[in-house]
Amino acid sequence: MMIAPLIQPEIKELIDNREFSVLKEVFSEWAPADLAELISELPEDEQIIIFRLLPKQLQSQTFEYLEYDIQEHLLSNLAKKQIADILNEMSPDDRTALFEELPADLLRQMLALLSKEERVTAMTLLGYPENSVGRLMTTDYIAVKENMTIAQVLHYIRKYGKDSETLNMIYVIDDNGRLIDDIKMRQVLLSQPTRRIKTLMDHKFVSLNAFDDQETAIQVFKKYDHYALPVIDADGVLLGIVTIDDVLDVEEKEVTEDIHKMAAVEALEEPYIDEPILRLTRKRATWLVVLFIGEMLTATAMGYFEQEIAKAVVLALFVPLIISSGGNSGSQASTLVIRAMAVGEITLKDWSRVLFREIQSGFLLGLILGSIGFLRISIWQRFSGIYGQHWIGIAISVALALLGVVLWGTTVGSMLPFILRRLGLDPATSSAPFVATLVDVSGLIIYFNVAYLLLKGSLL
Amino acid sequence: MMIAPLIQPEIKELIDNREFSVLKEVFSEWAPADLAELISELPEDEQIIIFRLLPKQLQSQTFEYLEYDIQEHLLSNLAKKQIADILNEMSPDDRTALFEELPADLLRQMLALLSKEERVTAMTLLGYPENSVGRLMTTDYIAVKENMTIAQVLHYIRKYGKDSETLNMIYVIDDNGRLIDDIKMRQVLLSQPTRRIKTLMDHKFVSLNAFDDQETAIQVFKKYDHYALPVIDADGVLLGIVTIDDVLDVEEKEVTEDIHKMAAVEALEEPYIDEPILRLTRKRATWLVVLFIGEMLTATAMGYFEQEIAKAVVLALFVPLIISSGGNSGSQASTLVIRAMAVGEITLKDWSRVLFREIQSGFLLGLILGSIGFLRISIWQRFSGIYGQHWIGIAISVALALLGVVLWGTTVGSMLPFILRRLGLDPATSSAPFVATLVDVSGLIIYFNVAYLLLKGSLL
Repeated sequence: MMIAPLIQPEIKELIDNREFSVLKEVFSEWAPADLAELISELPEDEQIIIFRLLPKQLQSQTFEYLEYDIQEHLLSNLAKKQIADILNEMSPDDRTALFEELPADLLRQMLALLSKEERVTAMTLLGYPENSVGRLMTTDYIAVKENMTIAQVLHYIRKYGKDSETLNMIYVIDDNGRLIDDIKMRQVLLSQPTRRIKTLMDHKFVSLNAFDDQETAIQVFKKYDHYALPVIDADGVLLGIVTIDDVLDVEEKEVTEDIHKMAAVEALEEPYIDEPILRLTRKRATWLVVLFIGEMLTATAMGYFEQEIAKAVVLALFVPLIISSGGNSGSQASTLVIRAMAVGEITLKDWSRVLFREIQSGFLLGLILGSIGFLRISIWQRFSGIYGQHWIGIAISVALALLGVVLWGTTVGSMLPFILRRLGLDPATSSAPFVATLVDVSGLIIYFNVAYLLLKGSLL
Repeated sequence: MMIAPLIQPEIKELIDNREFSVLKEVFSEWAPADLAELISELPEDEQIIIFRLLPKQLQSQTFEYLEYDIQEHLLSNLAKKQIADILNEMSPDDRTALFEELPADLLRQMLALLSKEERVTAMTLLGYPENSVGRLMTTDYIAVKENMTIAQVLHYIRKYGKDSETLNMIYVIDDNGRLIDDIKMRQVLLSQPTRRIKTLMDHKFVSLNAFDDQETAIQVFKKYDHYALPVIDADGVLLGIVTIDDVLDVEEKEVTEDIHKMAAVEALEEPYIDEPILRLTRKRATWLVVLFIGEMLTATAMGYFEQEIAKAVVLALFVPLIISSGGNSGSQASTLVIRAMAVGEITLKDWSRVLFREIQSGFLLGLILGSIGFLRISIWQRFSGIYGQHWIGIAISVALALLGVVLWGTTVGSMLPFILRRLGLDPATSSAPFVATLVDVSGLIIYFNVAYLLLKGSLL
């Protein structure tokens, strides 16, 4: 087992003592992912020393697992010959991902180091729009013709299959390069060598378009449980394949962005811990200021009831309790709906069903909180008498306001994602704080109006 | 291309007109995932009719893609012989997942329908704890001995490989069944048929333990970019393999749970839209009530300042603005930290680095909001004079309170996930609403104390 051998003190000591021959021997036994983890934890100058110790093949394998900033750092410090070896060995999809991160001048230098063939591949992949399936694909795959025999295919794979990312599937193309079928490797292996590919074909296959959004790829992968999918152009010509590991990386990034948006943080450009403080602050400030300006309406709304508050200060005491209940129930509802949309459980057409459910649920939740609020005031009154002779009016006002605010919060929170998606926006933008702000203002209006109606002539 | 052929009106018509022979022909061309999608959208009685139309092999393939409740419905309505065929054809991991969902008596009936061999497999897999890797594994894999030649291995695969989930990897075991290496299929295919497996071995492999948590499996898959991983017991004996598609399903569920927890919703048992209203409400009520009771402290806290509020009602107007700013900045911070922990960007030992970053960021954000608050009051005062002669004191109180509350919210929000994890709890539990509630109470205390100090002797 080679899982996550953490940097043992011994390794650290070997590095400190510059015992390179021992390290060389130890590292040659390690898995590339573990080596990448070790290198990532070293100071910059040691990264290069250790990387140079690795055998050539392990160098390029390890390189693929490193973060972009470390890759860039290594590229700037290795000899041209070494860089050329590494880049030419990398799989085209990982290389494309690295190239996207490089500054323009470094990119030009790197492209010059590629072999002519690899350069053509790189330029083609870089030609597709950002976030398109084209950028994720690799051109290492096996494509055969329908008239070949199994024996011929196996021979072909032995000869040309060295680089192909996955040999789980082979693809059948016609004379114009159009994809006409995919065949599982197991079917090939399980068949008699004299059979022709044609006899294994069922002309059923799932494919992606190079211009498809990467999010589409995630959905298709999840639906069909494949490890790799072929990518075609508008004419059906096979351009490459996309493998599930690259799609997973994209998905993790998408989920992170969604979660951040739901907390009113703009998409970060780097992992949280690497994002420079000022840029991190800016990404948070934008929404925080928007919400703050929206929330200013609460001061305006309360201003309208200033006289009532002056007459009955006790009403002000329950303001935070009431508006936060609306905010909490609203963010529960919006989060449930946003996530259900993200995983494809519900679509736009389900809005009325969701509305009906949320009204029921919101009503029950409002009843629960309203009752607790009523009890709270009654019990305090019983023991301290702080709410005075009109306590029952106050208790009923708070309870009714809670019912109204929670019902309203649930409704707004659940419907906002639908409205945003209908407008072509990302539903995750209806972040919980956004819903809370909306509900805060309307919650105050509900509360003070209920209190005004109930307490007019007595307390007010 | 077979991607998502939505139910065309024609298909709907064929079903309505009971044109089964035509449907039978159409469906035999469809992909199992698409058939499963179609069946899921039909009313219950039609589901069985359509399912029965499918050719036998397509039946079991399609069955694996269906949701548990539809699987259960079909099982209760098909003939024993048909059920036996489907269950025996299903891959062991998908079958285990289904069995976990079945009521105990139905489970017993189903187990009885399995062949003796398959029953042993099922019972073994069900013996591992819930959420363990053992429950996810399938026993369909290829294991060979190191002395076999490539030709022997290929022959072995042709003979026994029919059922194996993935042929991407073959596993080498010793005479005691212990896993000693994994070899990529491509290496086998690319080698001369007379070579022995031994000559391809490097004794480097990554494996999972059957008792490992499923979350561990997700991390290992992400780190090593494999499509399948071998599962061993404490003695190193190979028990089965886990494939990436099953891990993906688990991960989607985990992410959903995390997102729900962050919005203070307990983990749902069914997808949102299928969860019965009462249970859905209960899952939300628990936390909502806890937060509500916590939030009651705001009424108590404000009670202490009742006299001040009575003297200067204007102070109450800014309460929602100030506490919501603390809540929003706190939930931003907690969300950023929770997600960074979830994807492994930061660990417990990074707490001081995060604290230092968040104090800087929180101070800047507090300055921004404080300045806007100060401007807001100054401008309103200039045009309406509503804040009276002591407006500058009010403006400074609000600005300072905002600075303090935002800085405090950011600090609490970023540290709470660390504290929870340190206590062995799930950091996602420090849901945004939970942070907001904590910050609301302390925010009020900060605000009224600042105001008291600044306005004592003038407004108060």
